[in-house]
Amino acid sequence: MPNHTTIAFDADLETIRSEIRDMGGAVQRQVADAGIALMRHDAEIARSVIALDADVDRLLREIETKVVETIACRQPFAVDLREVVSAFHIASDLERVGDLAKSVCKRVLALDARAPGALTSSIAALSSLVLGRLQRVLGSYADRDDAEAADVWGSDQEIDEAHNAIFGELLVFMMSDPRNIGSSTHLLFCLKNIERMGDHATNIAEAVHYMVTGGRFAADRPKGSDASLRIAPQ
Amino acid sequence: MPNHTTIAFDADLETIRSEIRDMGGAVQRQVADAGIALMRHDAEIARSVIALDADVDRLLREIETKVVETIACRQPFAVDLREVVSAFHIASDLERVGDLAKSVCKRVLALDARAPGALTSSIAALSSLVLGRLQRVLGSYADRDDAEAADVWGSDQEIDEAHNAIFGELLVFMMSDPRNIGSSTHLLFCLKNIERMGDHATNIAEAVHYMVTGGRFAADRPKGSDASLRIAPQ
Repeated sequence: MPNHTTIAFDADLETIRSEIRDMGGAVQRQVADAGIALMRHDAEIARSVIALDADVDRLLREIETKVVETIACRQPFAVDLREVVSAFHIASDLERVGDLAKSVCKRVLALDARAPGALTSSIAALSSLVLGRLQRVLGSYADRDDAEAADVWGSDQEIDEAHNAIFGELLVFMMSDPRNIGSSTHLLFCLKNIERMGDHATNIAEAVHYMVTGGRFAADRPKGSDASLRIAPQ
Repeated sequence: MPNHTTIAFDADLETIRSEIRDMGGAVQRQVADAGIALMRHDAEIARSVIALDADVDRLLREIETKVVETIACRQPFAVDLREVVSAFHIASDLERVGDLAKSVCKRVLALDARAPGALTSSIAALSSLVLGRLQRVLGSYADRDDAEAADVWGSDQEIDEAHNAIFGELLVFMMSDPRNIGSSTHLLFCLKNIERMGDHATNIAEAVHYMVTGGRFAADRPKGSDASLRIAPQ
């Protein structure tokens, strides 16, 4: 029969889970809207993503406070301790994804009309892929589903391939006319920011794995090579 | 007279401080060496910075474990609680600075001979400025010196100005010959990574301020504009 401490701890845990759910929802909206803002060159949507950042920061602080209180008051151990510590890490990664979506949107506001629609659409499509990974990994957290987390962790090849293809197109666009360099620089950073959101989804997968199993994934994650590190000398 | 709990807590705190000191030392070495590797185009130094990352990651985990144990076993509150929570944040920022130094060094390994020495030297000089901020802010943590932390927090104008000047030179180099675009892309990311190290030094200043005073700096930090967001349409 559960005692008082167990009941209080379960209530704390439920609060933390619900706050992570709220934060995950807000950050997913930021990522989705950043893609739309980029594709449509929509300043209003871009501004709404930037504005949402304050809410995400507030949620991060609330989760951090709740996690620290829970560790101090309930002194959890084993799987219970792993769950609250993992929540701390997941919230931190989510905050950084939101930050990256904000950075993309700042560039949308700075982007001139020279950016070709085909390129911005490709980058927006990449952000949809990343959003899919984020949804799956947050699902794996909610369901404590280690198999799903492992699957997200091990399968970012699709993202790598799409990233590398777009990077190649961007270089061609840059080289074709020096007047394209301003827009290309913005798009280069947008592309990089979206790729990094994918890395944070991978970090969250690691946190879920640690939470459920207490173990760490092997260090050598199957990762495609980064085309931006393989630029051939011209 | 100090009781058992106080003595045990002080010992925990001393361990955490000493681990942050070790981690700060390792990360400062990474930043210094990344600058040298870039300036001299030195693959051996670049590889040593990349190799040091595993040590930094291990230190981060040790600090995290110690912080969680301390919160659970000693149930600190007020300034004591703020100190251990701040250590957690500082360690996390340090790990990201180390990661950025690693990213710079991966690009050093990929950089071809086309990158002009004047540009790589300017970027390396910026990394020295960032290193100076990192040293000062880690000193402010060791000395619990809020005035010094506030000074680091409020004065990154020098970094912004240097960053913007180099960014302008990079654009000119890119535009002057399409064959420069490969090298320039690497240098663009190196520059961005070093600028981001400076942002983490600012985050650490915020953590020190919170640790010492319990307050947060006002949100509107005096920050120079980012030239990379003001690229004029060509």
